Amino acid sequence: MIHVHSLLSGIPLTSMEEVFTTLFEKPGLKIERITSHGQASPEGFWYDQPSDEWVLLVCGSATIEWVDQPALTLHPGDHVTIPSHTRHRVVQTSPDALWLAVHVDG
Amino acid sequence: MIHVHSLLSGIPLTSMEEVFTTLFEKPGLKIERITSHGQASPEGFWYDQPSDEWVLLVCGSATIEWVDQPALTLHPGDHVTIPSHTRHRVVQTSPDALWLAVHVDG
Repeated sequence: MIHVHSLLSGIPLTSMEEVFTTLFEKPGLKIERITSHGQASPEGFWYDQPSDEWVLLVCGSATIEWVDQPALTLHPGDHVTIPSHTRHRVVQTSPDALWLAVHVDG
Repeated sequence: MIHVHSLLSGIPLTSMEEVFTTLFEKPGLKIERITSHGQASPEGFWYDQPSDEWVLLVCGSATIEWVDQPALTLHPGDHVTIPSHTRHRVVQTSPDALWLAVHVDG
């Protein structure tokens, strides 16, 4: 039986932390929803991920900082591909930021 | 250099056919945008795909018909996982239907 789920259901209205919800998963692949509520990466923290990530900002706004290029601000509908081990951090998110992230190994 | 792209840019305002745009691809995985303009699968045609598909309806509405369960109508933000070889067809799409599809082998 195939069911419909909504990306917009069950979103916490507020949270002290980002909330990660896995939508689909199989070996080497994970699709997840991330809700941010104004969170940013801690000062001095850099993501350095073993997987490639394709990320779409669905709602809100967010700014991603990189080691070796200017920061990028995303608006709804914007997507970026972040190759594995590309160091980055999230400088700001709006209170209503909602991401769709696809993590791909290999 | 990492660039931002918009899911909403370069959408054909009208088209006789659905338009497929690859957003990210690597072996065993493809993320694509599909714009529909009221198209439906031809009468008697059934998709029977070798890959699993996770699909999100971003804009518009669409109805998917299945061999062995009732049709499902999707609204913006709705997503479904379609396992490989699950026969289905698209019965209707609105003129502004925009899908995000993730095809996964294996």
